[in-house]
Amino acid sequence: MQQLLEEITQQLALETERGKVADYIPQLAEVDPHQFGISLATVEGERFSAGAAATPFSIQSISKVFTLTMGLGKLGDGLWTNVGREPSGDPFNSIVQLEHENGKPRNPFINAGAIAVVDAIMMGHEPRETLAELLSFVRYITDDQSLYFDHQVAASEMAHKDRNASLAHFMKAFGRLRHDVDKVLGTYFHQCALAMSCDQLAHAGLFLASDGVNRPSNLRVVSPQRARRINSLMMMCGHYDASGEFAFRVGLPGKSGVGGGILAIAPGRGSLAVWSPGLDEYGNSLLGARALEMFVQRTGWSVFGH
Amino acid sequence: MQQLLEEITQQLALETERGKVADYIPQLAEVDPHQFGISLATVEGERFSAGAAATPFSIQSISKVFTLTMGLGKLGDGLWTNVGREPSGDPFNSIVQLEHENGKPRNPFINAGAIAVVDAIMMGHEPRETLAELLSFVRYITDDQSLYFDHQVAASEMAHKDRNASLAHFMKAFGRLRHDVDKVLGTYFHQCALAMSCDQLAHAGLFLASDGVNRPSNLRVVSPQRARRINSLMMMCGHYDASGEFAFRVGLPGKSGVGGGILAIAPGRGSLAVWSPGLDEYGNSLLGARALEMFVQRTGWSVFGH
Amino acid sequence: MQQLLEEITQQLALETERGKVADYIPQLAEVDPHQFGISLATVEGERFSAGAAATPFSIQSISKVFTLTMGLGKLGDGLWTNVGREPSGDPFNSIVQLEHENGKPRNPFINAGAIAVVDAIMMGHEPRETLAELLSFVRYITDDQSLYFDHQVAASEMAHKDRNASLAHFMKAFGRLRHDVDKVLGTYFHQCALAMSCDQLAHAGLFLASDGVNRPSNLRVVSPQRARRINSLMMMCGHYDASGEFAFRVGLPGKSGVGGGILAIAPGRGSLAVWSPGLDEYGNSLLGARALEMFVQRTGWSVFGH
Amino acid sequence: MQQLLEEITQQLALETERGKVADYIPQLAEVDPHQFGISLATVEGERFSAGAAATPFSIQSISKVFTLTMGLGKLGDGLWTNVGREPSGDPFNSIVQLEHENGKPRNPFINAGAIAVVDAIMMGHEPRETLAELLSFVRYITDDQSLYFDHQVAASEMAHKDRNASLAHFMKAFGRLRHDVDKVLGTYFHQCALAMSCDQLAHAGLFLASDGVNRPSNLRVVSPQRARRINSLMMMCGHYDASGEFAFRVGLPGKSGVGGGILAIAPGRGSLAVWSPGLDEYGNSLLGARALEMFVQRTGWSVFGH
Repeated sequence: MQQLLEEITQQLALETERGKVADYIPQLAEVDPHQFGISLATVEGERFSAGAAATPFSIQSISKVFTLTMGLGKLGDGLWTNVGREPSGDPFNSIVQLEHENGKPRNPFINAGAIAVVDAIMMGHEPRETLAELLSFVRYITDDQSLYFDHQVAASEMAHKDRNASLAHFMKAFGRLRHDVDKVLGTYFHQCALAMSCDQLAHAGLFLASDGVNRPSNLRVVSPQRARRINSLMMMCGHYDASGEFAFRVGLPGKSGVGGGILAIAPGRGSLAVWSPGLDEYGNSLLGARALEMFVQRTGWSVFGH
Repeated sequence: MQQLLEEITQQLALETERGKVADYIPQLAEVDPHQFGISLATVEGERFSAGAAATPFSIQSISKVFTLTMGLGKLGDGLWTNVGREPSGDPFNSIVQLEHENGKPRNPFINAGAIAVVDAIMMGHEPRETLAELLSFVRYITDDQSLYFDHQVAASEMAHKDRNASLAHFMKAFGRLRHDVDKVLGTYFHQCALAMSCDQLAHAGLFLASDGVNRPSNLRVVSPQRARRINSLMMMCGHYDASGEFAFRVGLPGKSGVGGGILAIAPGRGSLAVWSPGLDEYGNSLLGARALEMFVQRTGWSVFGH
Repeated sequence: MQQLLEEITQQLALETERGKVADYIPQLAEVDPHQFGISLATVEGERFSAGAAATPFSIQSISKVFTLTMGLGKLGDGLWTNVGREPSGDPFNSIVQLEHENGKPRNPFINAGAIAVVDAIMMGHEPRETLAELLSFVRYITDDQSLYFDHQVAASEMAHKDRNASLAHFMKAFGRLRHDVDKVLGTYFHQCALAMSCDQLAHAGLFLASDGVNRPSNLRVVSPQRARRINSLMMMCGHYDASGEFAFRVGLPGKSGVGGGILAIAPGRGSLAVWSPGLDEYGNSLLGARALEMFVQRTGWSVFGH
Repeated sequence: MQQLLEEITQQLALETERGKVADYIPQLAEVDPHQFGISLATVEGERFSAGAAATPFSIQSISKVFTLTMGLGKLGDGLWTNVGREPSGDPFNSIVQLEHENGKPRNPFINAGAIAVVDAIMMGHEPRETLAELLSFVRYITDDQSLYFDHQVAASEMAHKDRNASLAHFMKAFGRLRHDVDKVLGTYFHQCALAMSCDQLAHAGLFLASDGVNRPSNLRVVSPQRARRINSLMMMCGHYDASGEFAFRVGLPGKSGVGGGILAIAPGRGSLAVWSPGLDEYGNSLLGARALEMFVQRTGWSVFGH
């Protein structure tokens, strides 16, 4: 395994076509596109990593997996009143679908859906309380108290909030949000500004690979059924309008972020995190997806057959 | 296993809410909604079945799995020039997506995509030649020479062809089809009129559960990679606009048909076929999906974890 | 003429089907639906009115005619950089079209377009300065210094701003707005809260009927070409998704508001204002449109022939 | 008048940017783009023309005005059951709107709407009978028995029918068409293949300028109300997705065709026909629209004011 991760890292180091770093806020635009990290945490408790696997990056939309988990914990199936669970067929920030479906977002991983999940988990509390709770949860599943929100990133997102503000006000107009739009957005932007390394991220995802049980603590985070369901949502909707492509090429449930990270789950086997800041045209890490494709080809860990 | 299938069959026999039988052609409208069958073929060569598992029904869109397999065999990745591989976010017969994407259908399982696949596999031949080839292929993977097209169903579909004719002419206008529209539709309607029982269907799907190898012949039908990719397409797009729901509840790659059948693949384990003619609002078998959900809950065969 | 207006008023007084009063803010929901007023100001300087023609009501979207006039005065054809001039085929508050056309609203009379016009006329000033300028302009063309904004209505709109806030943030994300979204919305909601009577409104529109010249002052407000162009926009887009219907039945350029008012222009002849608070399914005054239809049938003032 | 038409003709002869000739069928692609004709028939019975005003060209969609007139004559308001009367906000051959509105086309001038009108006027008859009736009608209002269908153009359209066939089958699937799709299309393509000169076309439109009365025969073709309504539809929908632009610049009801012709009606004054084969990006005659704009600026015949 260790050798495989190193081979992948070496091979991708030679790659000149690395995609385009997200540039809508300066904090992301300034990231060096030549960085690459990969990390694997297995259900047996082994850890492997290569490249810049200890470097923290902005996990962005990968955080939606954690808020979804919290949302299901708090509301159970009640969460689905204001969020759907189908692929959208539209880009991550599309508003067209909302208008056609009474302001109900298609799934919890497009921006509108993630904003609706944040609103659902706030439950009348202030942003700082919700954020403290989220941080506490992610520190718990990562077993690492050093995790933090990058406030500069969050502030910069807030300064460029218009597209997400449009989504939030639209849902609010349909009664899909209970809280003040600016408070919901403030919480959402901090959530997306979580800084994590591949090592931390792989650890954080491990409960989804092991039927809901955290490792090495062996404490249950979610039920096996809920773990399966979160995985199914990652498979169907984790890469926006390129989710089919990721399933076709990689064959694992995964969630990408515009910071260049991808978390992928191999049920019963392990949790993988990759990071390469350059994105493809759909906003997913170009080399990150390729690394996972190479990994699965070599290991046969696809959920769709060896 | 046998006992499990029988329990599921007995439990669903009590169900009074059985969905609505497809009624757009008389041959489907007249089917008795109280029938139910389930069949499992394992990669180890075992067979289990319960209920009306030997009764042939119109497999309809499930046939798209077989033509997709043929299309990949003939054109390889060239098939993807005129067909995409993303979930559509639209109903099975939507034309909106075609207009927004230059007549290229989103995936091979919506009607437009399946029609494009048929056109691709015709390769200049007449409908009867293509249909003979298809029948030969399905008889081979089923190991059953008795399979047949129900010509009455095909004729009735042709008499109600307008929605599909609209899709086909639209793609033709964008140069996505090479052959005469009526010939393509004639082939397509026959393909959908394949009559198969659950037992036959489960057998036919077995190569997708066993990395591309037919059982019990042990002859390779497709490469392991291709088997995985077909499974991924079934997962992402096999239930039209309710594919996310099927993945969420069942967690297996599957393909439904308006005849009330569903083929589901448990990679490395087996191939399942269920049949119950009543459909839900998305055009998928209501009790068929429930039977699969019960089966997976009891066996832990979900690809997303036990 | 006087007799005609009175006949129309009497006939419509008997009407029991009066539409549905706008109810999204309490100030509009509480208006008595049995009120009706009609007023005509001719280019020769005559005035006729019947019913509650002196009662002020919330002109709402009719105000968009005045801000469009100001916008063209300030920016000339530069206004069309961020606003189109085609019918939209969508409801007044649709956001779908914005996403499909890079955040550029179809025309200045749908909400998004009117918000873009407000942003254009602010030119770096504060809301109160822009509103003072607007009030001054409308008082001038009405020759009535008593006109006022209903601040309660404006405050209530602001409290229910979400749908319009969504439109504004969406346009802002595409760089279509220069000013702070809340300031633009504050200005927009005050503009819509202008209170005018039919008598005042008919007077205000008179310059559009007389080639751009105000009456009785004979001072030019806009060039003849600009008057024609504003009239053409009222014809094509003045009734949202029911503009075709209004042209078909009435045959005059017109602009409706959810307060139940309609301003209609008979070029070379006069300016008509009607008011009846009940709306049809498209948000246009039900009896107001019928009154205009009756008027045109009797006078032959349609622009499409006698 | 004569001098004005000649000046316009001379000025446009110098124009080097002449648009792009329609090229989807060879018969249109081969037309010399340097031709230009203009003709005016006044309600007083005068005739003026300049340039190639006697040269027949393919009137294409302008014919929709004549079939609409026939359709209203046969079905009255019953015609509106299967055709709407609102601008579409979409290109002439869009199918998106049909899917969103149960197969009912937005107006009689987009292709789908015109096909629905043809179906409505067939009333159980064969194409040749309907076409004979249409030819008879157009010969009557033109007072010219030499008018003909260009069968080569019609045959070529039929050979490139796919986009329109898609629209027709779609409507048929929703029960909007009564007749066989190929028969409806055959009739439609012949209708569009009517060959007329500007002189003939201006004469044919005269009844719409004179309250429904043909000139010089003084026989009534339609009621004054119906003439107004047809004019309103030409204004709102006559130039597809650029109808707003035509109203803004020209200010007359008009109908364009991809052959490069435009018929424009000045109610109470006269009927204008222009022809220049080069099209703008929306499929409307580039210099034709400019000629009408020049004409209206000089004469003050806009319906929106002098």
